Amino acid sequence: MFETIAIVGATGAVGGIIRKLLEERKFPHQRIKFLASKRSAGTKLTFGGAEHTVEELTPEVFADIDLAIGSTPDDIAKEFVPWAKQHGCVVVDESGYWRMDPNVPLVVPEVNPDAALAHKGVIASPNCSTTQMVLAMKPLHDAGRIRRVVVSTYQATSGAGVAGQRDLESGTRAALDGAKHDYEAFAHPIAFNCIPQIGSAKHMGYTSEEMKMVHETHKIFGDESIRVCPTCVRVPVSNCHSESILVETEHKISVDEARALFAGTPGVKVVDDLGAGQYPMPLDCDGDDHTFIGRIREDLSSDHGLAFWCVSDNLRKGAATNAVQIAELLVERGATV
Amino acid sequence: MFETIAIVGATGAVGGIIRKLLEERKFPHQRIKFLASKRSAGTKLTFGGAEHTVEELTPEVFADIDLAIGSTPDDIAKEFVPWAKQHGCVVVDESGYWRMDPNVPLVVPEVNPDAALAHKGVIASPNCSTTQMVLAMKPLHDAGRIRRVVVSTYQATSGAGVAGQRDLESGTRAALDGAKHDYEAFAHPIAFNCIPQIGSAKHMGYTSEEMKMVHETHKIFGDESIRVCPTCVRVPVSNCHSESILVETEHKISVDEARALFAGTPGVKVVDDLGAGQYPMPLDCDGDDHTFIGRIREDLSSDHGLAFWCVSDNLRKGAATNAVQIAELLVERGATV
Repeated sequence: MFETIAIVGATGAVGGIIRKLLEERKFPHQRIKFLASKRSAGTKLTFGGAEHTVEELTPEVFADIDLAIGSTPDDIAKEFVPWAKQHGCVVVDESGYWRMDPNVPLVVPEVNPDAALAHKGVIASPNCSTTQMVLAMKPLHDAGRIRRVVVSTYQATSGAGVAGQRDLESGTRAALDGAKHDYEAFAHPIAFNCIPQIGSAKHMGYTSEEMKMVHETHKIFGDESIRVCPTCVRVPVSNCHSESILVETEHKISVDEARALFAGTPGVKVVDDLGAGQYPMPLDCDGDDHTFIGRIREDLSSDHGLAFWCVSDNLRKGAATNAVQIAELLVERGATV
Repeated sequence: MFETIAIVGATGAVGGIIRKLLEERKFPHQRIKFLASKRSAGTKLTFGGAEHTVEELTPEVFADIDLAIGSTPDDIAKEFVPWAKQHGCVVVDESGYWRMDPNVPLVVPEVNPDAALAHKGVIASPNCSTTQMVLAMKPLHDAGRIRRVVVSTYQATSGAGVAGQRDLESGTRAALDGAKHDYEAFAHPIAFNCIPQIGSAKHMGYTSEEMKMVHETHKIFGDESIRVCPTCVRVPVSNCHSESILVETEHKISVDEARALFAGTPGVKVVDDLGAGQYPMPLDCDGDDHTFIGRIREDLSSDHGLAFWCVSDNLRKGAATNAVQIAELLVERGATV
């Protein structure tokens, strides 16, 4: 067990969900601290029925913290993680900054738990669009060895933070009223639109978000031979990312086998009855920790392919839930450094 | 030239655009008639500066009509097309009913114009999601022979007619106000949601909309060996369908070659500068007759693949514009029966 735990970025949207999850799931600890930028320090938060004051994130604050779960922008994570390590504090980090560091395991507990146990003080949680995809890939990869993935995403504005949410709501109201809205989080209007760019131009015409899906998938499965072609698109949905996924496996997996494999995977729920109009949709998956899969069918374009539709709450399994599960894994396996 | 022309379904959304296009493009004719259901008969419409009264769609009305462009539900098209044929009236039909009839050519003028010229009185215009895709496929197929397509769509509510449009607007207002909306055109809420079903369950877990993309593509290219795996999704966008398309060709086509091929294709506009945030988006393509292509890049998951993003106004090139272009083709080539 970790005696003193902390949430770094406690006043953010994901930080708030981490706090709720630690409370709900009765995460074992004796003391808890809430850390944030100087601007948010002093904010009052309730936890376990008591009021807590948010403290400023400084190097010294880690002196008596054993485990920190961080959800901050990349530049903050770059700065605070070494502070924590210096004091022997284990960090589970939600940011993108440490994910591809060869000394940092990148973990989805249902997929590669053992990697977490070999940590050197820092464990990274993947990008939201990667997490739900690799969770869906896992049973198929184990059963038939995935060689190729083609994925198109339908990503919610909550992935762009509180400003993204605000943009969707205010921008939509403005559009309905024929008024103008100055977008803060998006380079183009998101109301009643699709924006086929998330992140910056990165590699061969792919965006940084798309390349995360490629590289993080390789790292999590420890297999760079899995070929991934992603298209990441922002859609006017508030929360929960959807993904249209096609996988090709070395050994053919039938639709019935795939459905049974998905149903037997912890963290996955199958909702799949097209005739009855049943499949996962963002509005139905909001606030749930599962990754939902439906529209499971044979790929009409290859002999060893499967197509399916995958929806998950990007703030929960795509961020807060996965980080808390990593911390729980460390406690369960006694890997507390 | 056709002396007397008619629009069947003249009071519908697509019928209205056909009327506008015939006017704008100065479609040659001497008389024009506007036909609709008994309920809409008597409605006044302006065309060429004059007021016209909508007439009821009956068998007899076709006696003096030479060309009819129809945009009606399938069951109406099933009924009226034989009436027109009996009177020697050529029909360009927008509905789904006649598309796969072996005696009916299915035509996108930029792709397979010759098929139109061999008509036996009826020519069908494809489903909106097919039209923009085959137009994008055409230059790549000619240059490198397409073997496989994986496509995920982001389809606008205008594809579900006026009721779909109304549902999006009213449903979104209700969602913003925390109120309830009874959806008319959709089985699930479309406001701030994605619905991975368009049409009914049809074949092996695919929907009717998805199977249209498969079968119509085969018919238009006259090549059933092109393997197509579609996922059709309704998104909260008012107008213009977007498609994330991956094609594999027999002969490799580079990104630069593809860009040049697209740029040289009539009806296509390339908007492709990711670094500058330039790519097609539904809001920008609304009301335009072109099919827009961007995000052109090498497929990271195969050696002979290309990925790109394709947006087109589903009421224009996806419906009205394509039908009017077919009619123009008949006039130009003198194929007026």
